Amino acid sequence: MGSLVRAIVAGATGYSGRDLIRLLLNHPRIDLIGAFASRSAETTPLAAIHPQLTGLTSLDCQPFDEASITGLDPDLIFLATPNEFSHEVAPALLDAGATVVDISGAFRLRDAASYPKFYGFEHTRPDLLQKAVYGLTEFAREELRGAKLVANPGCYPTSILTPMIPLLGAGLVADNQPIICDSKSGVTGAGKAPTATTHFVEVSESLKTYNLFKHRHAPEIAQGLGVKNESRALIFTPHLLPINRGILSTIYVKLKDRVTRRDIMNAWRSAFNDAPFVRVFDESQMPEIKFAANTPFCDIGCAVDETTGQAIVVSALDNLLKGAASQALQNANVALGFDEGAGIR
Amino acid sequence: MGSLVRAIVAGATGYSGRDLIRLLLNHPRIDLIGAFASRSAETTPLAAIHPQLTGLTSLDCQPFDEASITGLDPDLIFLATPNEFSHEVAPALLDAGATVVDISGAFRLRDAASYPKFYGFEHTRPDLLQKAVYGLTEFAREELRGAKLVANPGCYPTSILTPMIPLLGAGLVADNQPIICDSKSGVTGAGKAPTATTHFVEVSESLKTYNLFKHRHAPEIAQGLGVKNESRALIFTPHLLPINRGILSTIYVKLKDRVTRRDIMNAWRSAFNDAPFVRVFDESQMPEIKFAANTPFCDIGCAVDETTGQAIVVSALDNLLKGAASQALQNANVALGFDEGAGIR
Amino acid sequence: MGSLVRAIVAGATGYSGRDLIRLLLNHPRIDLIGAFASRSAETTPLAAIHPQLTGLTSLDCQPFDEASITGLDPDLIFLATPNEFSHEVAPALLDAGATVVDISGAFRLRDAASYPKFYGFEHTRPDLLQKAVYGLTEFAREELRGAKLVANPGCYPTSILTPMIPLLGAGLVADNQPIICDSKSGVTGAGKAPTATTHFVEVSESLKTYNLFKHRHAPEIAQGLGVKNESRALIFTPHLLPINRGILSTIYVKLKDRVTRRDIMNAWRSAFNDAPFVRVFDESQMPEIKFAANTPFCDIGCAVDETTGQAIVVSALDNLLKGAASQALQNANVALGFDEGAGIR
Amino acid sequence: MGSLVRAIVAGATGYSGRDLIRLLLNHPRIDLIGAFASRSAETTPLAAIHPQLTGLTSLDCQPFDEASITGLDPDLIFLATPNEFSHEVAPALLDAGATVVDISGAFRLRDAASYPKFYGFEHTRPDLLQKAVYGLTEFAREELRGAKLVANPGCYPTSILTPMIPLLGAGLVADNQPIICDSKSGVTGAGKAPTATTHFVEVSESLKTYNLFKHRHAPEIAQGLGVKNESRALIFTPHLLPINRGILSTIYVKLKDRVTRRDIMNAWRSAFNDAPFVRVFDESQMPEIKFAANTPFCDIGCAVDETTGQAIVVSALDNLLKGAASQALQNANVALGFDEGAGIR
Repeated sequence: MGSLVRAIVAGATGYSGRDLIRLLLNHPRIDLIGAFASRSAETTPLAAIHPQLTGLTSLDCQPFDEASITGLDPDLIFLATPNEFSHEVAPALLDAGATVVDISGAFRLRDAASYPKFYGFEHTRPDLLQKAVYGLTEFAREELRGAKLVANPGCYPTSILTPMIPLLGAGLVADNQPIICDSKSGVTGAGKAPTATTHFVEVSESLKTYNLFKHRHAPEIAQGLGVKNESRALIFTPHLLPINRGILSTIYVKLKDRVTRRDIMNAWRSAFNDAPFVRVFDESQMPEIKFAANTPFCDIGCAVDETTGQAIVVSALDNLLKGAASQALQNANVALGFDEGAGIR
Repeated sequence: MGSLVRAIVAGATGYSGRDLIRLLLNHPRIDLIGAFASRSAETTPLAAIHPQLTGLTSLDCQPFDEASITGLDPDLIFLATPNEFSHEVAPALLDAGATVVDISGAFRLRDAASYPKFYGFEHTRPDLLQKAVYGLTEFAREELRGAKLVANPGCYPTSILTPMIPLLGAGLVADNQPIICDSKSGVTGAGKAPTATTHFVEVSESLKTYNLFKHRHAPEIAQGLGVKNESRALIFTPHLLPINRGILSTIYVKLKDRVTRRDIMNAWRSAFNDAPFVRVFDESQMPEIKFAANTPFCDIGCAVDETTGQAIVVSALDNLLKGAASQALQNANVALGFDEGAGIR
Repeated sequence: MGSLVRAIVAGATGYSGRDLIRLLLNHPRIDLIGAFASRSAETTPLAAIHPQLTGLTSLDCQPFDEASITGLDPDLIFLATPNEFSHEVAPALLDAGATVVDISGAFRLRDAASYPKFYGFEHTRPDLLQKAVYGLTEFAREELRGAKLVANPGCYPTSILTPMIPLLGAGLVADNQPIICDSKSGVTGAGKAPTATTHFVEVSESLKTYNLFKHRHAPEIAQGLGVKNESRALIFTPHLLPINRGILSTIYVKLKDRVTRRDIMNAWRSAFNDAPFVRVFDESQMPEIKFAANTPFCDIGCAVDETTGQAIVVSALDNLLKGAASQALQNANVALGFDEGAGIR
Repeated sequence: MGSLVRAIVAGATGYSGRDLIRLLLNHPRIDLIGAFASRSAETTPLAAIHPQLTGLTSLDCQPFDEASITGLDPDLIFLATPNEFSHEVAPALLDAGATVVDISGAFRLRDAASYPKFYGFEHTRPDLLQKAVYGLTEFAREELRGAKLVANPGCYPTSILTPMIPLLGAGLVADNQPIICDSKSGVTGAGKAPTATTHFVEVSESLKTYNLFKHRHAPEIAQGLGVKNESRALIFTPHLLPINRGILSTIYVKLKDRVTRRDIMNAWRSAFNDAPFVRVFDESQMPEIKFAANTPFCDIGCAVDETTGQAIVVSALDNLLKGAASQALQNANVALGFDEGAGIR
């Protein structure tokens, strides 16, 4: 075993940052050498911010500062920071030579023009949008090897693209028919900031839709599926579930004539044969959030009404793990040439 | 004010029965004179079965027995009993002259042939299937007046038919396009019997689909919408939410060309102008389960993507109230000539 | 029936204010004529603030302003406002002649010296602390009749004082032994402001103690029980439960020699014989939060180990109803000479 | 590294069994060679019983049968079986030479006479009650080394004994004063069988006490603390929380004169200096269930009112891990001479 890779987590105060730190502390090839919060934060022990980490690390979480970070000479930097902040700080960190895995949306969309509309800021580095590898690991292993900038996919997009890319790729889905993605997420997906939306009393014993036709993950899903709205409606409806972690996506698609459930299963089995973190469920058991929560898996299954050719694809994953931290680590592992499951299994 | 109507609740041990009793105890025109459980039950105070009712009633819950019931000379009988049991006992109770409001599915489907497939028993009284009034109150007030047998709608169908009937009626929905109903229900909808499905640990912090393409509410919805599968796919996907009460349905429909959000609102406003228990939400606020839970309302709202003509209709209701007990009472009120909201508001 | 009493709710944006409004809208003798928020709020329809109220009221919620309120010439004003704000505004409202029922803690403690320590402000009206009636309705009916200022009890104190006052009054409790109150509350008790404490993810799937030995309800409980710390330790430990509404208090007391469970039941039955909103549970069923939630009751029960003379008293109530809004209305009813249960049952 | 220890889990269908299997699958020194259910079960893949384990193991879960088990020649057998079943089968498994770690209560109480009263069966092997090592790991490492029969402690007792044994051992607690343990547990503690008690609707949005003065963990706690009821009342009140996993115990004790909070912290620090799975929280942060859930830790903290000498000790753990599976593995590790944290950290 060679020397350890020196890694840093920026955005260490959030939920994704915390889960990533927990994984990194057990990684056989990576040494977590620094954790950073916002620019104005005070230096605080990580275990005071996340009491779950008590006894697991004595690292401090420091105020974000490019010079402090590059001064630590890191090989690998995870940005679990807000979109616009990642956009601001990634270039200098890349210039300093580190591999950057960005968990925000700052480098996910190839089309810079989408940023003002969906993210509320002008993107100043369209060149990086072309260079960034979109890290849906199972479909990007080749480009990931040696990559310097990885755009880690959104949690909702991961839950939708993972099952749908093989079906579109295998030509199983009818043309010109809408793809309807009814997705439901736990509250960690809304972040750690206390808001009216995340107040226990507003969430508990309830369910709501939000951002109908307007969620910023919609263009990311369309990009990943290669869907243009002129040719096919892609509808993505997020809901807020009264649970901590987990996403279930129920996806409605019309199949081409004579396509069967078995064709879907074959497409998935061939796509995910060697994928350590995608589990294909057979007919006897559909994915449920509780099977995937607290795991690094994306679980997928489907039901088909062969009379009408309608398929219902169901996927489940943990939004903080396969939807953020563990996929970021999958991507780092592949980028650095490690075993894809190192520190994750 | 004349003399009080004498009412009985059979199936008083379940959640719908309990909520119905709570409503009846406050009804100005109805006197609850009896409560019944299964045939083999022992006589037990209602408050021992439902400690919530402590101090509110001293009635006993008795074993079900036709002679005991008819001996009380009831004017009105609510059946909150299992489907097959309602099917078995309703005829004799009707013969005894009482108005019967059946909360089960025993008399909801006009087509007797659907019963073996979806309910697991042969229907022996197709004549009653023709005579029963399907009590989606807002659309059935005329037939309800003086009705002797009311088939109270299912909870999911109420949440879907209420917003959709006016849209189809006004001709706003594109022909030959699927109607996709992604519905999510709290656990009271699964009944009071302890099963693996209703175990706290299996439900909590999770979400799952169930009965894909096979739920018995699908033919009821199709019947209510006048949809035949040959002409248009109707897809109904129920999910089990980790909450006690409430249903949210997210319904995807393609609108006809040039139909706008305003057309939908107009159709609803005209349909529900005088409806005391349907609330039409405007664009600034979509229905959420928490607004409807513990109320007798069905809340409806919608979003429309006018580029693609796709509409998302969202409805919310309390499955035990508008989806069962309070709608049963709405129906009884109309059948008996009382104010529709008596004992409900 | 005479003319209606004209009532106002200040603090209408909070959870207690909302539940109080819901009750008042159904009150046969009271007309809700105004609803007020903070001084800097904008006028907004109540139903926009609390979508639950859609269709139930068209009242606006206005910015708080003494002149606007007194200009409406109200007979009755409920203050569901923060402690210090109630302290500030109550005197002028009283001077204008209205009966004031204050749901905050501003007038609950007789000893003005406790305010800086437990409430963080100097109390400037110790005279009103003497005049205010502490509205634990069941023990204060005499003083409540015609009262002009009612200090509505805290939610935790109501859950503890209701069962304990009769036991101390009947001399059943051993002297000089601690009374230990282990109380657990739902999150509505923490108010509507989004904070780290009320974030869904922090509360859900967890339980925590807070304010050990320091909660501001401790002196209120001690005052209500007539306990001085020199003679007897009163320990009150609040916990935050992952539920919306409800308090369960588990209270540990040492009984005097030869006192039995039956003695406790007798003391309670005699104290609450005519109390419409206290339910005494017998041995076969202890109070649970779900029996009391969404009801105006305080449920009480106990278990006694007659070998050791240790008693465990258990009480449950809905913190927004018996712990706030419905008790406020009970108090207003008694103060105004109405039936105690008007608008509540 | 030598050859792997061959291990079996009986009771593999329950929650503790499942979590234990998940740990064992990652253990560097142990090979899981078999999983067993009840005698009448059918052979079923583990992943069909626990879909969480999909992709992690291809083992079947077989019907329990002594000959099948001993035929596999196991070195180590975990019994996650019901109390009476463990009592029945452990002797033959011990005779076959395996080390047995029993997660049930069958061998926890030294006094055989307690079994009929608290467990409902006569204990036929009082000799094994004397030989079994009570595996509260932190206090039993010496006896555990080489032990053949380990009685794994109950979840509630672990949460109470861990903080309290050092305080009694250091003589900090006043004599003849009650120790009051108010404990709250998640629903996995009630097992996987669907009952009225574990029905989602009965648990959710509620809290209840149960088995007041009668829980079978009370004699286990008394034994662990060395408390005899003649000299000191030990009161243990369990509550059922609406969460999946986790216990919080709030323990009230009177300290001896002049004992301070610092004395408690010193006693704990000295007791747990080398304990990898006990975390002592300082004053700024009390234990909460969410910090300990899904971890192998028992977290402890305290508050002291130095005026009255009353202490509140708070502990939190995951009932399926430190309260069952991970402590069982800690015990197995120590018994077999492995690193205490192997497969757990």
